[in-house]
Amino acid sequence: MYLDELWKKESELINKEVSVHGWVKTNRNQKDFGFIDFSDGTSIKHLQLVYDKDSKDFDGLTHLKSGAAIEAVGTLIKSVGSGQDVELKVKSITLLGDVLDDYPLQPKRHSPEFLRSIAYLRPRANMFQAVFRIRSVAAMGIHEYFQSHGYVYAHTPLLTTADCEGSDQMFKVTTLDMNNLPRNDEGVDYSKDLFGKPTFITGSGQLQGEAFASAFSKIYTFGPTFRTENSNTKTHANEFWMIEPEIQFCDLNELMNIEEEMLKYVVNYVLSHASLEIDFCDKYIEKGLRERLQKLVDSKFVKITHKEAIDLLLKADKKWEFEPSYQEDIAKEHERYITDYYHGPVFVYDWPKDIKAWYMRVNDDNKTVAAVDLIVPGSGELMGGSQREERLDVLTARMKEMGIDEETVYWYVNLRRYGGAVHSGYGLGFERLIMYLTGVDNIRDVIAFPRTPGVCDY
Amino acid sequence: MYLDELWKKESELINKEVSVHGWVKTNRNQKDFGFIDFSDGTSIKHLQLVYDKDSKDFDGLTHLKSGAAIEAVGTLIKSVGSGQDVELKVKSITLLGDVLDDYPLQPKRHSPEFLRSIAYLRPRANMFQAVFRIRSVAAMGIHEYFQSHGYVYAHTPLLTTADCEGSDQMFKVTTLDMNNLPRNDEGVDYSKDLFGKPTFITGSGQLQGEAFASAFSKIYTFGPTFRTENSNTKTHANEFWMIEPEIQFCDLNELMNIEEEMLKYVVNYVLSHASLEIDFCDKYIEKGLRERLQKLVDSKFVKITHKEAIDLLLKADKKWEFEPSYQEDIAKEHERYITDYYHGPVFVYDWPKDIKAWYMRVNDDNKTVAAVDLIVPGSGELMGGSQREERLDVLTARMKEMGIDEETVYWYVNLRRYGGAVHSGYGLGFERLIMYLTGVDNIRDVIAFPRTPGVCDY
Repeated sequence: MYLDELWKKESELINKEVSVHGWVKTNRNQKDFGFIDFSDGTSIKHLQLVYDKDSKDFDGLTHLKSGAAIEAVGTLIKSVGSGQDVELKVKSITLLGDVLDDYPLQPKRHSPEFLRSIAYLRPRANMFQAVFRIRSVAAMGIHEYFQSHGYVYAHTPLLTTADCEGSDQMFKVTTLDMNNLPRNDEGVDYSKDLFGKPTFITGSGQLQGEAFASAFSKIYTFGPTFRTENSNTKTHANEFWMIEPEIQFCDLNELMNIEEEMLKYVVNYVLSHASLEIDFCDKYIEKGLRERLQKLVDSKFVKITHKEAIDLLLKADKKWEFEPSYQEDIAKEHERYITDYYHGPVFVYDWPKDIKAWYMRVNDDNKTVAAVDLIVPGSGELMGGSQREERLDVLTARMKEMGIDEETVYWYVNLRRYGGAVHSGYGLGFERLIMYLTGVDNIRDVIAFPRTPGVCDY
Repeated sequence: MYLDELWKKESELINKEVSVHGWVKTNRNQKDFGFIDFSDGTSIKHLQLVYDKDSKDFDGLTHLKSGAAIEAVGTLIKSVGSGQDVELKVKSITLLGDVLDDYPLQPKRHSPEFLRSIAYLRPRANMFQAVFRIRSVAAMGIHEYFQSHGYVYAHTPLLTTADCEGSDQMFKVTTLDMNNLPRNDEGVDYSKDLFGKPTFITGSGQLQGEAFASAFSKIYTFGPTFRTENSNTKTHANEFWMIEPEIQFCDLNELMNIEEEMLKYVVNYVLSHASLEIDFCDKYIEKGLRERLQKLVDSKFVKITHKEAIDLLLKADKKWEFEPSYQEDIAKEHERYITDYYHGPVFVYDWPKDIKAWYMRVNDDNKTVAAVDLIVPGSGELMGGSQREERLDVLTARMKEMGIDEETVYWYVNLRRYGGAVHSGYGLGFERLIMYLTGVDNIRDVIAFPRTPGVCDY
């Protein structure tokens, strides 16, 4: 029996014989009895196994090592000691798989760096048990939100020959022999490649998502995304997961409402479906985590324009490292000031068009675009979205201006020729959300097997 | 208002004024009145808009074209005609986005080949409305099954430097300038590449999934997968999605039970959550689809060994194109005979080891491995799984025998050193499942933007 089932049926199993399989976390013993802290990883709540001279092969049991796989048979009893509600009075334990003495994950404190170097074992450590279960539960919360609100889950392609984002930021993909590339007058002869053209892994499913939204109105993507950025920071990885909803007949204001509703739904979902894991993170990773998350759920998000944000920053009695500017992005220090000022999450919208992407809808002032970033206390930007430019002439003019080749995305442009209308969408970096939900401050510790410059192990 | 909400609240909206936005599917009119078949894609059930001389700008309305985006305001009334339960008596319609005359998706029958050539528009066609919604609902059913059974959703990496499957079958990935590759004595100098090593996109998350299962016991992956196969068949694509559960403390027999339970759960989920879409597919794609799916849910799957299967085939009074053999795979014609014989899904297990993968557990006969394929009536193989070799010495001997480099997957091997135990897992090709669920016979028509040799558009 797995522990998740055992805990569900706990009351009916009391004083019954049960059999569990899992791993020894720790094994402490005295002359006549011993305790095994036991888990199979299906619940963050461990089971205590109590053995004594009545248990089969007492001596053998005292030698069971941390990390060993065992099957334990015994009676589930109300615990006499404090802490645990119930424990297993062991009749017998069978060793299913032993552990060598060089087992790197001994039960003691390890540095994050060391744990990253054994990424294939670290999910067994308590912190990662909590983090990766929260990650799984949060993913389910996201699917539940969108599916219960009529969205279609769209699987947009990762392989693409449309390099409109600039191929510099995308990985190149090939089936050609790299040591012996076929050539023609122009360089590599891609006609010999599997797709007959230079091919990339995409950094976003947004454009294809818009095509789907022009058929289903409400769609979302949820899949892996890739960036070639050569930056070693706590928030950058070369492979990460993204959620990209696209919504037809939805303007920027409505988009903000959806973002707010979705985020609260997912946070609530995690608070209730991974409650023990949140408690763990609250205790060991970030004190006050649950309160911070509950505050988000209870708050009303503020909406201010980029101009209003800059006004606020310029009025502030503060010395800035980066001087706030009406033409520029807002820095980390600015984000912090703004969320502090409003005591909660803030949507900053209507951004200067020159620092934003080509597909965002140009406002009537012709200076700003209908884009919005959500900034949250403690984490800064969590989501970014915009109304998409639905006007054919404005879009093509702006593409020309920004050097986007219309031919590679003719179909995207065509959506404006064939029943296009007001629509909006946003992107949510999943790892950023998990960091927000757990208090973990390094993206490498919320990804199972992180890929960062120079690091692509396992 | 979106149609999915309207249908949910239908009864309370009768005789009330509502406003909907969406697209004109068809527009038929006579002298004094007209009908618009209207949908916003949030439901396969369309709304009929009825306009007449009382509607604002009757003449303009008669000219609304298929594909145009509109907002319609009117009263939801019980329909007098047959077919529709309710319809919208139009007060006014606003054109939100017109459609050019060269709109390729005119309301008539189109060939699948033509529709593939306009993959960015085809989700608007009824068939794809049904197929892609079923795909979305099936994905949710899969997540629901695993999450409600205590599994952790693991995001295994796509980028990998472990080429243990044979790099021939994997796409190479690089950030290097393909036209100007840095070189050293051995060929391309990968130390200059982003990860400092030759890098690939993986064809499976199984190995990393096993590492996760050794921490959480029950895990599943669900993500995109890549194969470089240069084959143009109805069942091959170079990019597709896979579900790969790995379960610790689970033997082959239990694995079969889980596969059966999961598949029935998902089929049931789709039958009830995409009922109208299944009806559509039943009517237009495969007559008897619903009955076939219901039969699967009601059946008890049969379990036979590969030897028993070959016995059965050899005894059959049939002329085979491929002669059944105890040493070989079973062909399509064999699968068909077996499922016909048992009138339902059949697990074929204990396969000759020489035709199966290196990580599958060797049986005591030393001739077969504890592998299992599920074959289903009509579709052949739907899932493939195995007990994984948990014995260190057997695994490493077999890796040597099959030329698998232990160094590239030392961590996988180590799982057998550190508390390894009996465990099993399987793979389910998501597109194959969707074909099974919809009756669609070409994989290109269940993938949003399919990637096949020579085809990587959008």
